[in-house]
Amino acid sequence: MAEFDLIELIRMRCARARADVRLGIGDDAALLAVPGGQALAVCTDTLVCGVHFPKDTAPYDIGWKALAVNLSDLAAMGATPAWATLALTLPDADAGWVAAFADGFAALAGECKLALAGGDTTRGPLTITVTAHGFVPEHLALRRTGAQPGDAVLVTGTLGDAAAGLALRQGALRPGRGEEQLIARLDRPVPRIAQGLLLRGRAHACIDVSDGLLADLGHICNASAVGAEIDLAMLPASPALLGLVADDARVPLQLGGGDDYELCFTAAPALATGLLNDLARSGCAATRIGRIVAEPGVRVRDVDGAFIASPRAGWEHFSS
Amino acid sequence: MAEFDLIELIRMRCARARADVRLGIGDDAALLAVPGGQALAVCTDTLVCGVHFPKDTAPYDIGWKALAVNLSDLAAMGATPAWATLALTLPDADAGWVAAFADGFAALAGECKLALAGGDTTRGPLTITVTAHGFVPEHLALRRTGAQPGDAVLVTGTLGDAAAGLALRQGALRPGRGEEQLIARLDRPVPRIAQGLLLRGRAHACIDVSDGLLADLGHICNASAVGAEIDLAMLPASPALLGLVADDARVPLQLGGGDDYELCFTAAPALATGLLNDLARSGCAATRIGRIVAEPGVRVRDVDGAFIASPRAGWEHFSS
Repeated sequence: MAEFDLIELIRMRCARARADVRLGIGDDAALLAVPGGQALAVCTDTLVCGVHFPKDTAPYDIGWKALAVNLSDLAAMGATPAWATLALTLPDADAGWVAAFADGFAALAGECKLALAGGDTTRGPLTITVTAHGFVPEHLALRRTGAQPGDAVLVTGTLGDAAAGLALRQGALRPGRGEEQLIARLDRPVPRIAQGLLLRGRAHACIDVSDGLLADLGHICNASAVGAEIDLAMLPASPALLGLVADDARVPLQLGGGDDYELCFTAAPALATGLLNDLARSGCAATRIGRIVAEPGVRVRDVDGAFIASPRAGWEHFSS
Repeated sequence: MAEFDLIELIRMRCARARADVRLGIGDDAALLAVPGGQALAVCTDTLVCGVHFPKDTAPYDIGWKALAVNLSDLAAMGATPAWATLALTLPDADAGWVAAFADGFAALAGECKLALAGGDTTRGPLTITVTAHGFVPEHLALRRTGAQPGDAVLVTGTLGDAAAGLALRQGALRPGRGEEQLIARLDRPVPRIAQGLLLRGRAHACIDVSDGLLADLGHICNASAVGAEIDLAMLPASPALLGLVADDARVPLQLGGGDDYELCFTAAPALATGLLNDLARSGCAATRIGRIVAEPGVRVRDVDGAFIASPRAGWEHFSS
């Protein structure tokens, strides 16, 4: 299959009529119109085969996930997704593989009304880089820097599911009821876009949990020059996770497993109840899991209120 | 070296104070302000080690080239560069390598006052994806679609140098005087940004020559539903190329070698002289090499005016 046929195959599936795409796939660059009064939010994330997804992941899921991890970053800024570019490096031009990949990408893009505006296809080891673009009024953007001592710490959805899904895929966890849901959390994460929009102007700080709760909450704390205390008993767990993983094995997955793509955010306690109600109505409930404190660092309290030694703080590339 | 140290190393070298970067490297997404009345031009290009540059290329040159090939796309739209994101996949976190890479990227970014606004670092086979952003008033953007029969076809700079540089690097061409210049054209292409700006509102169609003149002029012709005739005798060649490569070996390099990163464009003949003068004053002279015709296809005339059989039409991934 020739490169131009491959591009056409992707374009047919992933391009989308948007009035603000003045010129889409097929020229040297896309021409895009950013609405007045909005900042352009831009993020980029790469998925490397065997590092960010298991080698046997279905191409549909790879396409979905490559976009999802980027939309999760936009969600964490409180931005509305608009466009993406796709840089796809492939070992060979397998039309069936590319079609399924593009279908997965397009399925999520369609849900968000996002247009693929451009890209590049190259030959090499399977690697996917998506750059996503969205809009947010600058003064409403959710940064990492605004957390204040006394803030409540909250998180959307449930934690540890994707990490359990990976353990299932790797044979490190015994299969059982609910395993499909856990694996789906790994392969088809759902970016919390609507929830990010609800947090605009209400959350003091926000991040998406991609490297594990402790690591990502740590980023908020570092950026805000504060610390945090987490209550182990409050960490949200899905019924599938509770059913398949014993307590002692579950906690490390929830605190440091990564790939959750939930939003972790802080807000004034007086606003927390209203936020929780609005988020529950949005279809993705949130949970209050702790508080921001002045003392640096992220610490975890067990059910008796005593601090516990923290497990590994999260996924980091290039760590030994 | 930890991932966050690596990011900091790149940030120190490549971030740049620009008033329109409201929030740069270090949050979930960058926040950028697009000036009113301008379209956002966005392009993305990937370099894969061993495919887009020889394995022994210096990291400084890889950093330069990764940005240059993208700025060449912006130049071909007539856009002013503003920001880029960098997705860097590395087999290991060698601080010296990354510093040299970032220095090369920063050297070109500095010349263009472009800010690195965000990125991602991952572990895997050496692959670099840059997404570049620039501005151009929508009605002045240089597209591929406007070529008209009777237009002059022009090209900036000289053709075939980078292809000769690659042949030198691969040992397929005997070294000699001027070889450094040819290899520099391969390793440190200079995007024709100022020239693209001069073409705004004057060129009918424009593309950057990355896959070879015949292939890229072919893209203009296909997009514009026209054809082109090129005069072999008019193809611009550098003194270094003329000195090192015999005529019969030179022509395929000029027509199909790729990696030139010159601008190929069409314009009304009445405007061609003024354009040629302005381009010469810009520091990168252009040459009139042929004309647009109604009949589809790109054909080449030899010095006697007879059509010649065309060599391979240009670089394409996934071709057998």
